[in-house]
Amino acid sequence: MKIKNPFFSKQNNIYLSNILKTLGKNKIKKDVKINNISDIFSASSTDISFFNNLKYFEQLKKSKVKYVITNEKYSNKIKNYCYPIIVENVLKSVYEITKIFYPKSLDDAVDFLVKEPRYDLYKNIKIGKNVLFGDNVKVGKNTIIGHNTIIESHVKIGINCIIGSNVLIKNSIIGKNVRILDGSIIGKKGFGFFPSKIKNLRYPHIGMVIIKDNAEIGCNNTIDRGSLSNTVIGKNTFLDNQVHVGHNVNIGDNCVITGQVGFAGSSKIGNRVLIGGQAGISGHLTIGSNVQIGGGSGVIKNIPDNSKVMGYPAKDIKNFLKDNKNVR
Amino acid sequence: MKIKNPFFSKQNNIYLSNILKTLGKNKIKKDVKINNISDIFSASSTDISFFNNLKYFEQLKKSKVKYVITNEKYSNKIKNYCYPIIVENVLKSVYEITKIFYPKSLDDAVDFLVKEPRYDLYKNIKIGKNVLFGDNVKVGKNTIIGHNTIIESHVKIGINCIIGSNVLIKNSIIGKNVRILDGSIIGKKGFGFFPSKIKNLRYPHIGMVIIKDNAEIGCNNTIDRGSLSNTVIGKNTFLDNQVHVGHNVNIGDNCVITGQVGFAGSSKIGNRVLIGGQAGISGHLTIGSNVQIGGGSGVIKNIPDNSKVMGYPAKDIKNFLKDNKNVR
Amino acid sequence: MKIKNPFFSKQNNIYLSNILKTLGKNKIKKDVKINNISDIFSASSTDISFFNNLKYFEQLKKSKVKYVITNEKYSNKIKNYCYPIIVENVLKSVYEITKIFYPKSLDDAVDFLVKEPRYDLYKNIKIGKNVLFGDNVKVGKNTIIGHNTIIESHVKIGINCIIGSNVLIKNSIIGKNVRILDGSIIGKKGFGFFPSKIKNLRYPHIGMVIIKDNAEIGCNNTIDRGSLSNTVIGKNTFLDNQVHVGHNVNIGDNCVITGQVGFAGSSKIGNRVLIGGQAGISGHLTIGSNVQIGGGSGVIKNIPDNSKVMGYPAKDIKNFLKDNKNVR
Repeated sequence: MKIKNPFFSKQNNIYLSNILKTLGKNKIKKDVKINNISDIFSASSTDISFFNNLKYFEQLKKSKVKYVITNEKYSNKIKNYCYPIIVENVLKSVYEITKIFYPKSLDDAVDFLVKEPRYDLYKNIKIGKNVLFGDNVKVGKNTIIGHNTIIESHVKIGINCIIGSNVLIKNSIIGKNVRILDGSIIGKKGFGFFPSKIKNLRYPHIGMVIIKDNAEIGCNNTIDRGSLSNTVIGKNTFLDNQVHVGHNVNIGDNCVITGQVGFAGSSKIGNRVLIGGQAGISGHLTIGSNVQIGGGSGVIKNIPDNSKVMGYPAKDIKNFLKDNKNVR
Repeated sequence: MKIKNPFFSKQNNIYLSNILKTLGKNKIKKDVKINNISDIFSASSTDISFFNNLKYFEQLKKSKVKYVITNEKYSNKIKNYCYPIIVENVLKSVYEITKIFYPKSLDDAVDFLVKEPRYDLYKNIKIGKNVLFGDNVKVGKNTIIGHNTIIESHVKIGINCIIGSNVLIKNSIIGKNVRILDGSIIGKKGFGFFPSKIKNLRYPHIGMVIIKDNAEIGCNNTIDRGSLSNTVIGKNTFLDNQVHVGHNVNIGDNCVITGQVGFAGSSKIGNRVLIGGQAGISGHLTIGSNVQIGGGSGVIKNIPDNSKVMGYPAKDIKNFLKDNKNVR
Repeated sequence: MKIKNPFFSKQNNIYLSNILKTLGKNKIKKDVKINNISDIFSASSTDISFFNNLKYFEQLKKSKVKYVITNEKYSNKIKNYCYPIIVENVLKSVYEITKIFYPKSLDDAVDFLVKEPRYDLYKNIKIGKNVLFGDNVKVGKNTIIGHNTIIESHVKIGINCIIGSNVLIKNSIIGKNVRILDGSIIGKKGFGFFPSKIKNLRYPHIGMVIIKDNAEIGCNNTIDRGSLSNTVIGKNTFLDNQVHVGHNVNIGDNCVITGQVGFAGSSKIGNRVLIGGQAGISGHLTIGSNVQIGGGSGVIKNIPDNSKVMGYPAKDIKNFLKDNKNVR
């Protein structure tokens, strides 16, 4: 089920010709309306997408998307599956196209619409002192909101949740029975930009953070929202304190993530994954289900289902223990 | 000296028969009143305790406790020292018993009793803007409380302390001359729970955080309170920024813990221990006194007094340096 | 260009005789006025400085400073370049001298001058709810200040900046077009002190944090100010979430520092340096320009320009990959 994104309003009259013009490309004979810009996992046949990483080739083959921004070097490989639009810098072109669809998406500043909540609108919830709510915040009944917490506009929080004190939530959809503990910052724009000599160009982040039912987020966590797709924390997944989750990370259900673990962007974590303290997961990886990752590990490649790994770089835990058997 | 725990009120009329009934066990002939549930280090002869880790066998032998929850497999080993009560899941049974003694201990939500402090009650302390105090907060003279800081009910803070801004303190007893710097969260429930398919079951945390005289806690630290016993930061021990201390960790006196160090639960650290940045200490370990642990180390076994270790896993620093001598 | 430090007022009538008396040293024949205490990089000919680390010998040789606090063991080595003042504990003597010049520098408590900003003085900036400004805060036009943020006295912020919510800034000078995201704590005193059995002695920190134009500081970062010199974040340098920067660290321009990286004190980082997530940089190191440091690395020695390193301890990335080629 696709969750509607209420945070950025999309322009609806965008044609392929508008996009090609923005990219400085030649016109085409027959123009066509483009519905949205999406990553290769979620793009429908009427969207435009992009391809700049061979890891996602199988996904591209399955996708119904027609128009795909890519580099010269990938063009031949993908042209049997889509209509490639060749550009020099794929991500920069995606940035330009995202601006066409979501002209306000670069404006990730402070939400100045927040104010003291109208208690008559939030009768069945318990709200602490000095709390600020943006416009159109939805909170389910029996939910508790701690002191000094800021919930920015359009955020949705389910029933029976506990949101701690000093929490900041923006661009997020929170399920039911979720706990978000004190000091956490949920939904900030991810750390993505195009390096530039004078001033790096911030990548638009139109994705959300989705936190599913029964999950728990510890204290002082930072969970960044996705760029084109969402950052997801699965059902009944528990995060300890000081965990960092980068943009577009997708963590499955029933995972246990202990203190100070960090996830770089865009990795996909299966279900029932246990990760020990201070482990780090590099970007764009696939970690299977039922995986156990030892504390302090540095995971820099995919991990299949049912594996136990440890080390830096992480390897089969039996090998890690054998290699370190004689440690004095 | 045992510090009285003012945070959860204990039920006082609990008999062994109540406990056995809760655990679904048979009645006993002669009933006996049980005073409390405690870990094996602090249990008195009238308490009930639990045993599920051979590391603590010597401690059990020394303990005067009579009734001990345990597994079938440990039953024979311990029966000469106590009366074992055999259950399938020790920690889950401890959870059930804790609920009998401390029925409110699962309710670790926001303290809604906090409000602007009554300045007439706190004449000799300096209080910042937007500060919130719970019920019965005790603060010693000449102590400073920074802006936006929340001190929840029954917390005690000694004289001459400096508490920074945006700090949250709950379930904690703070000595004198202590500094707790901006953004730290002290006394939150630890990261302990019984995994369950639909919704993990949060472990009750009736312990406190004890911070002893002259200690300093850096910015954005998270120090979780203990489950049955306390989390302790020793005298004149200094913690740098972004340190995470898990539940039931006991850090000795005159230690120096640098930035981003993490302690998993229940480890005991001696006196005058120096720990370099980003090091991680696994759970249930004993680190001796006068130990030096190099930055980035991953400590996964006990460390004797007067050792210097470094590496992941941590080993004698001479060996670490030798093994890495030719690093290019 | 030297930026004036508006945070601590300096005593201007300090003579060498005052300093020698404080250190318990004999009088000298001809007294001389001393302008300031400074580290060896910034000391002018009328200042006093200190020397206790051979790493800085070349710098000392270049310096015009005349009077240098040092140990007996370095005295012969440096006496051709300056007039050494031999003490037992160099840093403790620096502490005593700093107290003479900056008698208020030990008082790093909460700024109690903060209050609701006078909006008539800050017409061209946008200020959130519950914001607190100290005395003489300067903010450039078009800058945005988020909710619950505290800007302490004498802080300067340039034009077109975005300061997030729940941010705390003290003892800092911020350039233009800078972003400081939610929950970050900028300008706190560094983690420097003289160990002492009863109560460690906090080192005075009269330095500032300088954040240059176009830089971005992520969420929940902690950037400590310098002791004698400043902590510097270069132009267009971007820091991700949960980064810790120790006192006196100097990061160059156009660097990219990803999540949970930590810098111990006093290291100097060149320009265009990329550092992967959770890497740690030890103290007093020199990292060249165009260096790439892999995620999870522990850097414990200097790194020359244009290097790529990874590992713990960090080594040439080609060797790291070769050594781990057969990782299973």
